[in-house]
Amino acid sequence: MLLKWHNGYFCAMLSVVILGTGNLAQHLAEAFSGVDPVSLVQVFGRDPVQLQWFENHAPTCSKPDDIVEADAYIVAVSDTSILEVSQLLSDKNGVVAHTSGAATMDVLPMANRGVFYPVQTFTKGKSVDFHPIPICIEANLDSGRIILNSLAKSISSKVHPMDSKQRRQLHLAAVFANNFTNHLYGISEEICNRNQIPFDLLMPLIEETAAKIKSLSPTEAQTGPSKRGDQKSMDQHLSLITNNREKEIYTFLSDAIKSKYEKKL
Amino acid sequence: MLLKWHNGYFCAMLSVVILGTGNLAQHLAEAFSGVDPVSLVQVFGRDPVQLQWFENHAPTCSKPDDIVEADAYIVAVSDTSILEVSQLLSDKNGVVAHTSGAATMDVLPMANRGVFYPVQTFTKGKSVDFHPIPICIEANLDSGRIILNSLAKSISSKVHPMDSKQRRQLHLAAVFANNFTNHLYGISEEICNRNQIPFDLLMPLIEETAAKIKSLSPTEAQTGPSKRGDQKSMDQHLSLITNNREKEIYTFLSDAIKSKYEKKL
Repeated sequence: MLLKWHNGYFCAMLSVVILGTGNLAQHLAEAFSGVDPVSLVQVFGRDPVQLQWFENHAPTCSKPDDIVEADAYIVAVSDTSILEVSQLLSDKNGVVAHTSGAATMDVLPMANRGVFYPVQTFTKGKSVDFHPIPICIEANLDSGRIILNSLAKSISSKVHPMDSKQRRQLHLAAVFANNFTNHLYGISEEICNRNQIPFDLLMPLIEETAAKIKSLSPTEAQTGPSKRGDQKSMDQHLSLITNNREKEIYTFLSDAIKSKYEKKL
Repeated sequence: MLLKWHNGYFCAMLSVVILGTGNLAQHLAEAFSGVDPVSLVQVFGRDPVQLQWFENHAPTCSKPDDIVEADAYIVAVSDTSILEVSQLLSDKNGVVAHTSGAATMDVLPMANRGVFYPVQTFTKGKSVDFHPIPICIEANLDSGRIILNSLAKSISSKVHPMDSKQRRQLHLAAVFANNFTNHLYGISEEICNRNQIPFDLLMPLIEETAAKIKSLSPTEAQTGPSKRGDQKSMDQHLSLITNNREKEIYTFLSDAIKSKYEKKL
């Protein structure tokens, strides 16, 4: 633990190493650089070119032997690389946490292990305010839990302890709310493009659809012909779709909505 | 046309009658009441109880014979009632416009007909700022077009002339972006509920997913296991889903995403 002189006291600072150079690693490096109780002591990555971006934020390192001691190691790499990268830390005492929603904590081979999962989608180059982003944490040891909790609280106001079983279900729910939803936006855009309609005409609707469920459950917020069981409107829509895959998705999701609300009638 | 004394001049005011008492009728009545160049001269509805809400905004009327003369009649009723309600206006000279995205302009039986379609989802009791909401207008006569255009511009900064063919395609695109998306939010919520996870952990992700496509096309914004063709993660997700319908939707949308991006590889 590092100490920092602050308002007449020595304060404990959390020393952190980030492993990985991708999207999330970049956003975390920016976030940790901006908060007082955290000292980002190193960023590790295999590729010196990818590491360059981090030079303004922390010392960088591309050789496993040069990885320094720290209170926490955040392994921000793809799920398939977690094990390999974490094995570089087998001689370290600090807590080692991955950032995945889908991988269990126990993919990490060390005793002092944990998870640090921010529930958000990150875009390269688009700056992120972590404050409203939930961070789900899990740890195998109390000492690791305290450190990951402090680390998460230093950047987010929504820190949630959550075990691997729940976190994987949350990640599954996120696939519906994010990946699948984005695919529907894509179909919407393609329909607009095919018909020379500016897609941005739909932006206020898309934003309101997302905002609405803050005050109303999605089940209560549902509208549209499939909810009303309005077959005539659905048939009309189907006749307007020229792409077979879109026709299938329209039919499939309409049927799902119909059957959900038929039960409730 | 009414005249109003304004800054030393008599200004032309558009007189408007709203027909219908539902959600959109309420929001339009509120919006038109707040703007200078429009005079909401009457709201018509069959049910006196439903009409009560409108008494603060305009004179109300439940008898077809009492419908007054106006520059524009906005028929804000369900698609299946448009024809019946508009027939009450067969002796009127003002432009008669419905508010539907799906119905063609020509369902209206009069020569002076048009469409006034706000591209938004409306929630009863939740106040609406029409300013950023696109309003698509169409008219059979130039005189009607001028009036509907002025009316739309009085409440919105995004007025788009659009014919029935394009508008129906836009409405179809809106079903994907709104109705189907909301159904996916609902599945997300159910997964959370079943696993005692607060659904609001997903709100920042849902908002960011919607916000992201302002600067990035949905095709570029797509992420997730199905885009990467990561079958292992998809199989893991499927093993976590306990509901058959959700399993089907997961598989179906994953396949759609996979095949979209496989083509591009």
